[in-house]
Amino acid sequence: MHDLLIIGGGPAGIAAAAYGLGKQLDVVLLCADFGGKAGARQQLADQLEREHLVGEEAFHALRQTVAEHPQQIVDDYVIGVFKREQLFHVLTERTTLHAPAVIVATGARPTQLGIAQEHELTGHGFGYSIASHAHLAAGREVAVVGSTARALRGVAELLHSATRVVLIAPFPGALNSALGQRLRADRRVDLLEGYRVTEVESSAGAVHAILVARGSQVQRLPVQAVFVDLGLVPNTQMVRQLVQLDEHGFIVIDDQQQSSVPGLFAAGDVTSVICEQIMIAIGAGAAAAQSAYEYILAQHLGLERTSIGMR
Amino acid sequence: MHDLLIIGGGPAGIAAAAYGLGKQLDVVLLCADFGGKAGARQQLADQLEREHLVGEEAFHALRQTVAEHPQQIVDDYVIGVFKREQLFHVLTERTTLHAPAVIVATGARPTQLGIAQEHELTGHGFGYSIASHAHLAAGREVAVVGSTARALRGVAELLHSATRVVLIAPFPGALNSALGQRLRADRRVDLLEGYRVTEVESSAGAVHAILVARGSQVQRLPVQAVFVDLGLVPNTQMVRQLVQLDEHGFIVIDDQQQSSVPGLFAAGDVTSVICEQIMIAIGAGAAAAQSAYEYILAQHLGLERTSIGMR
Repeated sequence: MHDLLIIGGGPAGIAAAAYGLGKQLDVVLLCADFGGKAGARQQLADQLEREHLVGEEAFHALRQTVAEHPQQIVDDYVIGVFKREQLFHVLTERTTLHAPAVIVATGARPTQLGIAQEHELTGHGFGYSIASHAHLAAGREVAVVGSTARALRGVAELLHSATRVVLIAPFPGALNSALGQRLRADRRVDLLEGYRVTEVESSAGAVHAILVARGSQVQRLPVQAVFVDLGLVPNTQMVRQLVQLDEHGFIVIDDQQQSSVPGLFAAGDVTSVICEQIMIAIGAGAAAAQSAYEYILAQHLGLERTSIGMR
Repeated sequence: MHDLLIIGGGPAGIAAAAYGLGKQLDVVLLCADFGGKAGARQQLADQLEREHLVGEEAFHALRQTVAEHPQQIVDDYVIGVFKREQLFHVLTERTTLHAPAVIVATGARPTQLGIAQEHELTGHGFGYSIASHAHLAAGREVAVVGSTARALRGVAELLHSATRVVLIAPFPGALNSALGQRLRADRRVDLLEGYRVTEVESSAGAVHAILVARGSQVQRLPVQAVFVDLGLVPNTQMVRQLVQLDEHGFIVIDDQQQSSVPGLFAAGDVTSVICEQIMIAIGAGAAAAQSAYEYILAQHLGLERTSIGMR
């Protein structure tokens, strides 16, 4: 029996663990990858310097603090989370842990493009997060694949510094939004509607073109970077049966990071409040831990969670 | 003319600056105290180890990143923020700076108790933030002065580890809330209603008693720590004439950290969303910078800010 179980070792989970440890709680951080995906870096061929991800220094500092408590970190895969009476049962591949409060911070993974060598290309001018890597596109011609609101936001960001953006939209997506209309009219944007990507050409770790097709029409477009945004898939398999999800499968939370199940909190990209940014995920993880802590304090006093708060 | 002006050098301001620098924006961080109040530490007499504040390692890491850009940090006091057409004019003691977007992250200061030696006592068993320092009260008798919701939350937290809490409530405050009623009934809580503090006794840097009075009644209560929570006063003097404040004087923001004035964002303890916790303030600062960035991108494209977003 522990005080708080945290699932996920990315920035949100690490921040939640740091908060809980600071409050002297018996916290267990469950993660198969202590560190999460916040380490993913882009490297373009002619860049010599190692890329700096905004907020990574903060994340590494927190990670180090949490790593000083190795007995609170369990390297295990979580199969399912169940609640019985006031207690959560967290079933992993090797054991079952119990606590009155749980934080889910398992993140989301990008939808893959589905081309050959996709894994090898990733990080070498090919990636899934414009918000993290847009500054690498300065003065270059880049391609964006996708038409989600997030993809179009990325195009707006890229237009700040890239010389030209090829926007490949397999589906209409958000193209009819105000931003979509605006990008459609922008001379720096080449919009290819209804096309799908067949190949990304690269050599010596550098992307140099993208090949797209619509029916029998094929085009080869020279670009130096490709960003794919076909949507994110939240990692919710362990709580799917328990908790309310939104229409895209993300965990619905209130402004206190509380899910539909009392005592179950969530933070970061697995929630309906997208973070993506490391520092924002850190804030969300700490806020979830603060809420969980107040839930535990309230339970000790026999009160509702909402009876305890900062205001 | 800059891209973004950030006022305040605490965790929210530093995180906002780190985000803006990462986005290659021309950011200026205006602060008279690069580092904010997140350095305030408590030290009880018999503690040998230096106290660790949750999240401070993350903050110091970010602070160091920002410090690598000394030309973007201006040590100056901001007198007023004005908006004319689409541009903010930030008047300081020495100059005037201009930008299309501003983030206010000036924090809040605690209401003082108003006793002699208050400044000297602070940090030596006398402080203003239970949420940051409650773990130091483990196994001790402590006093809390105040009856705000935040003060009562603090008592709930202290009861987790302190042996006894003397609650001195000069005003009824939130004492009639569910939590207040519960604490009133708790045998570990000595409630002194209508009393005011006349003196805190300390020697050799250690608090050992608090003296309180109501009319001619005087009591001396032995305690090893005193936490004062008579409310926070937000540092809004530079924007008070410009922006909507809530009934306590905090800047009203929406869920995108946007104030009532387009292009003016706020983050941290100066806002109606209290942070207090360093990591939560980091998240809020980064979120404000992300919103400000999207505001700038939208302006470049001639769109409303809300037309650009992650979802």
